[in-house]
Amino acid sequence: MAKMQIDRNVSIYPMPVVLAGAVVGGKANFLAVGWIARVNYEPPMVAMSLGKSHYTNGGIREHKEFSVNFPGLDLLEKADYCGLVSGREKDKSRLFTLFHGALKHAPMITECPLAFACKLVNIVQLPSNDLVIGEIVDAYAEEACLTNCAPDIAKMAPFTLTMPDNIYWKIGGRAGKAWDAGRACM
Amino acid sequence: MAKMQIDRNVSIYPMPVVLAGAVVGGKANFLAVGWIARVNYEPPMVAMSLGKSHYTNGGIREHKEFSVNFPGLDLLEKADYCGLVSGREKDKSRLFTLFHGALKHAPMITECPLAFACKLVNIVQLPSNDLVIGEIVDAYAEEACLTNCAPDIAKMAPFTLTMPDNIYWKIGGRAGKAWDAGRACM
Repeated sequence: MAKMQIDRNVSIYPMPVVLAGAVVGGKANFLAVGWIARVNYEPPMVAMSLGKSHYTNGGIREHKEFSVNFPGLDLLEKADYCGLVSGREKDKSRLFTLFHGALKHAPMITECPLAFACKLVNIVQLPSNDLVIGEIVDAYAEEACLTNCAPDIAKMAPFTLTMPDNIYWKIGGRAGKAWDAGRACM
Repeated sequence: MAKMQIDRNVSIYPMPVVLAGAVVGGKANFLAVGWIARVNYEPPMVAMSLGKSHYTNGGIREHKEFSVNFPGLDLLEKADYCGLVSGREKDKSRLFTLFHGALKHAPMITECPLAFACKLVNIVQLPSNDLVIGEIVDAYAEEACLTNCAPDIAKMAPFTLTMPDNIYWKIGGRAGKAWDAGRACM
């Protein structure tokens, strides 16, 4: 084994790819986000980190609501478009068919196999990013993508991202059972 | 399309799987973590969310340093073991061969194709979790896993996790080029 020191601006391998939705200037807008994770178990919370200059941040601040949508491979081009073009320049409100749960300023994407709506809990100010923390209020999945009432990634067909090579990757086959495979080491 | 409302305790699809390292009670300890994301661009920062009861949290609070290690498929059983067994009960300091960069309390795993060391920036208190934010100080990759001086996920062979089905998944093939595929929608 030979370890090399590399640039400390390291990606997470891999990152999920979601479309964050908000209402900005009276219109639904969507931003492609890879810097996202669950952060609290009960109540369920998520955090996503957005560069401070993004158009979406203002809508989240104003309405204190946002959505998180998981695009499948069939939406890869549209999802990437949402990361290429700012809502300041292009109206993205008609790119998708929208629906809402309890929150009226958290537009969700019908074409996505999984989407959830959040109310804002806090925005942690970091030097170049806004770390947006939200409580998941309600969640919706495409019926055909469920197995045992839970989303099934093999049916959802989401994709992931690596940087700085900027490549989207498919999900592969099963590698093992979590909280189980490690029993071999006991 | 038919959307069903599901349990709001929704996973991210998929989650990365890392081993968070810290020194607790004078010994290196490792915890399997799926709730992790980059959160600041410059300086580079990462955030990971740990249940408040974990043994690792105390070591991070004490020394204000931690590591993040990306296991490949060959380490799946050991990585899962680190999520099954608490450092309170089992000494995990000899599971791996360790190395250090500039931070003496951020033990990194030689067997992992990628690892980085962080100094603690802040711990955001959430209801059931500690959201640990750290600045990436130095990063190391296995030479054989680099392409153009950056980690290559196809060579690293990490794996991902979904819940509540608790399955680890391999990375699949290329799905597209980011900040490029969306030009088709312009």
